[in-house]
Amino acid sequence: MAYNLLRGKRGIIFGALNELSIAWKVAERAVAEGAEIILTNTPVALRLGAVNSLAEKCGAVVIPADATSVEDLENLVDRSLEHFGGKIDFVLHAVGMSPNIRKNIPYEEIDYHNMMKTMDISAISFHKLLQTLYKKDAMAEYGSVVALSYIAAQRTVEGYSDMADAKAMLESIARSFGAIYGRKCKVRVNTVSQSPTMTTAGQGIAGLGEWFAMADDLSPLGNASADDCADYVVTLFSDLTRKVTMQNLYHDGGFSQVAISPSVLVAYEKGKQ
Amino acid sequence: MAYNLLRGKRGIIFGALNELSIAWKVAERAVAEGAEIILTNTPVALRLGAVNSLAEKCGAVVIPADATSVEDLENLVDRSLEHFGGKIDFVLHAVGMSPNIRKNIPYEEIDYHNMMKTMDISAISFHKLLQTLYKKDAMAEYGSVVALSYIAAQRTVEGYSDMADAKAMLESIARSFGAIYGRKCKVRVNTVSQSPTMTTAGQGIAGLGEWFAMADDLSPLGNASADDCADYVVTLFSDLTRKVTMQNLYHDGGFSQVAISPSVLVAYEKGKQ
Amino acid sequence: MAYNLLRGKRGIIFGALNELSIAWKVAERAVAEGAEIILTNTPVALRLGAVNSLAEKCGAVVIPADATSVEDLENLVDRSLEHFGGKIDFVLHAVGMSPNIRKNIPYEEIDYHNMMKTMDISAISFHKLLQTLYKKDAMAEYGSVVALSYIAAQRTVEGYSDMADAKAMLESIARSFGAIYGRKCKVRVNTVSQSPTMTTAGQGIAGLGEWFAMADDLSPLGNASADDCADYVVTLFSDLTRKVTMQNLYHDGGFSQVAISPSVLVAYEKGKQ
Amino acid sequence: MAYNLLRGKRGIIFGALNELSIAWKVAERAVAEGAEIILTNTPVALRLGAVNSLAEKCGAVVIPADATSVEDLENLVDRSLEHFGGKIDFVLHAVGMSPNIRKNIPYEEIDYHNMMKTMDISAISFHKLLQTLYKKDAMAEYGSVVALSYIAAQRTVEGYSDMADAKAMLESIARSFGAIYGRKCKVRVNTVSQSPTMTTAGQGIAGLGEWFAMADDLSPLGNASADDCADYVVTLFSDLTRKVTMQNLYHDGGFSQVAISPSVLVAYEKGKQ
Repeated sequence: MAYNLLRGKRGIIFGALNELSIAWKVAERAVAEGAEIILTNTPVALRLGAVNSLAEKCGAVVIPADATSVEDLENLVDRSLEHFGGKIDFVLHAVGMSPNIRKNIPYEEIDYHNMMKTMDISAISFHKLLQTLYKKDAMAEYGSVVALSYIAAQRTVEGYSDMADAKAMLESIARSFGAIYGRKCKVRVNTVSQSPTMTTAGQGIAGLGEWFAMADDLSPLGNASADDCADYVVTLFSDLTRKVTMQNLYHDGGFSQVAISPSVLVAYEKGKQ
Repeated sequence: MAYNLLRGKRGIIFGALNELSIAWKVAERAVAEGAEIILTNTPVALRLGAVNSLAEKCGAVVIPADATSVEDLENLVDRSLEHFGGKIDFVLHAVGMSPNIRKNIPYEEIDYHNMMKTMDISAISFHKLLQTLYKKDAMAEYGSVVALSYIAAQRTVEGYSDMADAKAMLESIARSFGAIYGRKCKVRVNTVSQSPTMTTAGQGIAGLGEWFAMADDLSPLGNASADDCADYVVTLFSDLTRKVTMQNLYHDGGFSQVAISPSVLVAYEKGKQ
Repeated sequence: MAYNLLRGKRGIIFGALNELSIAWKVAERAVAEGAEIILTNTPVALRLGAVNSLAEKCGAVVIPADATSVEDLENLVDRSLEHFGGKIDFVLHAVGMSPNIRKNIPYEEIDYHNMMKTMDISAISFHKLLQTLYKKDAMAEYGSVVALSYIAAQRTVEGYSDMADAKAMLESIARSFGAIYGRKCKVRVNTVSQSPTMTTAGQGIAGLGEWFAMADDLSPLGNASADDCADYVVTLFSDLTRKVTMQNLYHDGGFSQVAISPSVLVAYEKGKQ
Repeated sequence: MAYNLLRGKRGIIFGALNELSIAWKVAERAVAEGAEIILTNTPVALRLGAVNSLAEKCGAVVIPADATSVEDLENLVDRSLEHFGGKIDFVLHAVGMSPNIRKNIPYEEIDYHNMMKTMDISAISFHKLLQTLYKKDAMAEYGSVVALSYIAAQRTVEGYSDMADAKAMLESIARSFGAIYGRKCKVRVNTVSQSPTMTTAGQGIAGLGEWFAMADDLSPLGNASADDCADYVVTLFSDLTRKVTMQNLYHDGGFSQVAISPSVLVAYEKGKQ
């Protein structure tokens, strides 16, 4: 069902790679809700993925940009303003990658060149995006910027490695820039802390499959899917949430507020015998 | 603007007293979004307030209920199920009162009979409501129950007295019952931690006027109004937030994430000279 | 090993029942660190327990007091001031009981008369204690009041029932009263959120045994024992923590900061097969 | 007063520059409590500061190390193990610097080369330290590593700029590495979130003076001083806190738990007139 919740709104979606991507679902949902969108990703991701088919489906323009490159971001914002003929109402930042995880390097044997890359791609890119939007006065009043995060920023999930630290930093950037952007331009900045999700990126984390099942069992409503996330993000882009800012919003079926569920305890006991 | 976000949904709204009430605004907004509602409040509040005019405007039935009386709540739920001819999709709990505050008794000289009343009215009533809904299997799958809270549950606001403790308990009840209600019936339970709001209840708190202004100055987007809150609550009643549960959601213009703002610091310094 | 950390200090310990009690361990530890103490508990607990043997060992006076009775608390504080010949330096509140848990009543079928008792015994008693100490100006400057809490106040542990809500309220009271007591008398108020502990009270919670083992497996340093807790509480009574107040301090081997541990995930998977 | 709380313990203290430094106070306090210490800082800081006089006073060796250099850290740890003739019991990380702040570059105009440096010096250096200690199996069982943090990691303090993000990352590293270090070697890792403190580093932050006074007025016990912090850190190095790990511990006179204090509200109002 659609509600025209984003009628007349224009936004940029980072990070759609393929049909499993949360960003992909957000793009589809935003358009279904009446928005006009621009899709962006790195040139490599654009080549590997299926973004063009999404763009076609959504009537969207694709503008390549490496989110770690200020130059690329400036080009993206300039061209977006031009394409839309006006300011931007919403942006989704769904960008993250850890070379340490990719290479199966344990957190206690981290390579610091890799760690710097993790930070640049997964956290500082968000600052670069916000600063570029700000500098160019590109966001409409009460515009909404959302980045995707994960609870490992608060509680350890082994295997998530330096992405936990990157997400902690990402959430901090949302607060730090959100304070300034709110005061000066009435722009909202939030992060959504999403359930583990079986995206292509998620599948790259060793042991996620098992963890996914256990998180589902711990969460009173089960894990939130990429589709659920798209629904939720759309509310955050809408005019109905104009006073929500600088928050890290758990979208996780209740997982974050649970210490233990009865079924998990039973399985644990059985497994220990 | 309306989106038909609650089309076909049916809900109960507690706590509308007059046009300043958040619950009043939620009622109007929910109806504008396509919902059918039942209004409820204590017999005294119904007499003092202007609920009948709201009911008329909203095409709503009014069913009196003291939220501390399980008997009243059972009657309310029974009659609501009957009236709607089906299950309930959403409920707003906007109920709270401290006799200690009303009588200007400082927190360090509290009367415990009063404190028990504060807890019963402002927190335990929420458990009674949830337990009654649960027992009668009254909520639809993915139904949504929202209670209003305040940041004094996390950080001290002198003058808010035992209501801070009541709100802490209220938020805990949302988690505790939310875990069970989610697992067993896929029902969501959340609290919204709202900016200080100039309702009739709010005006009863000594010094709120001054605090309201300072909170507004600290919040990057300013205080959220009752109208803003109604918009937000409507998203939480909608199908777009079906995996959000057991959360305490700050709806406060960013206040909760701020230690200090430049303008407040300047005023403070000036005031100290 | 002892350090004379509480040399010359005088305190009151609530809640020692038998050798398993955290309060028992705190009493022993405080005396080993040079403190003079008074032990208190309800008349029933004093009869059932072995407090007299502890008192003898510690050279302590026993003064019966029901922590829900302001009259008893006033008597306790008066007699303590008299006995010590001066102000009180520290107090441990280790008081909690839920008739709903005792009677195996599930949280979704709670009896409200019981719930009120849970709140009175487990949370409001702390306010009564603080208010009595405050009214009688009984605490020394930089005196320290500690209450025992549990993480169920933040994250659901099924079976812990309305004690979760009581602990949330208890922690709120620590903040609310701590703000006032700090400003006016430089008295500290904190809660310690302790690992599940196999005390007599703990053993009364159905399923705690299983949960105890799993919490131990989740915690990087394992569960903290009652002895560990006594060590920690002694630091909070000492002069070395004079600027720590209004905090809820996790003493739990790291449990609170963990989402999942590798060994628990392995056991869970195995148990699910 | 001293208690021999660290008798027989051996530790490394980073970050002592001059008598205003928290690390300086920790060094003095640790030695007064019976510890043997090694002091370290960058060669530049060693030249600029007065560390040699501290070393003399403390009977401490000084080993230069740039905390961003893994090579320097390896040398430091090797030489420390050799000097002590055994494992290390405690380490203080009091390291942080933002070139953006030094150059008065606002957060919304950040230079990313600077930001990378802020992260490397103020956060990643902590991972490097932990990884080096871990790799060399240099910490004794129940050894304790503490890093200094600040509440800007949770709530915005304008002017604190990218240090807020660095502190958020630092606290995340404490959790992430703490989980592993705890499980594998029973080593504790915590951060202390200290009141604004008038150190040389603190004085470099524009507007800190004013903010210092307001934070003091908001905190029920006033700001915690560097001396207070040293007392507190010593308890975290001691054997009395062996089950405390992965925590961010507020040492702030209660500031973190306060939304508003009466005196600040009065000053604010006056200043607004």
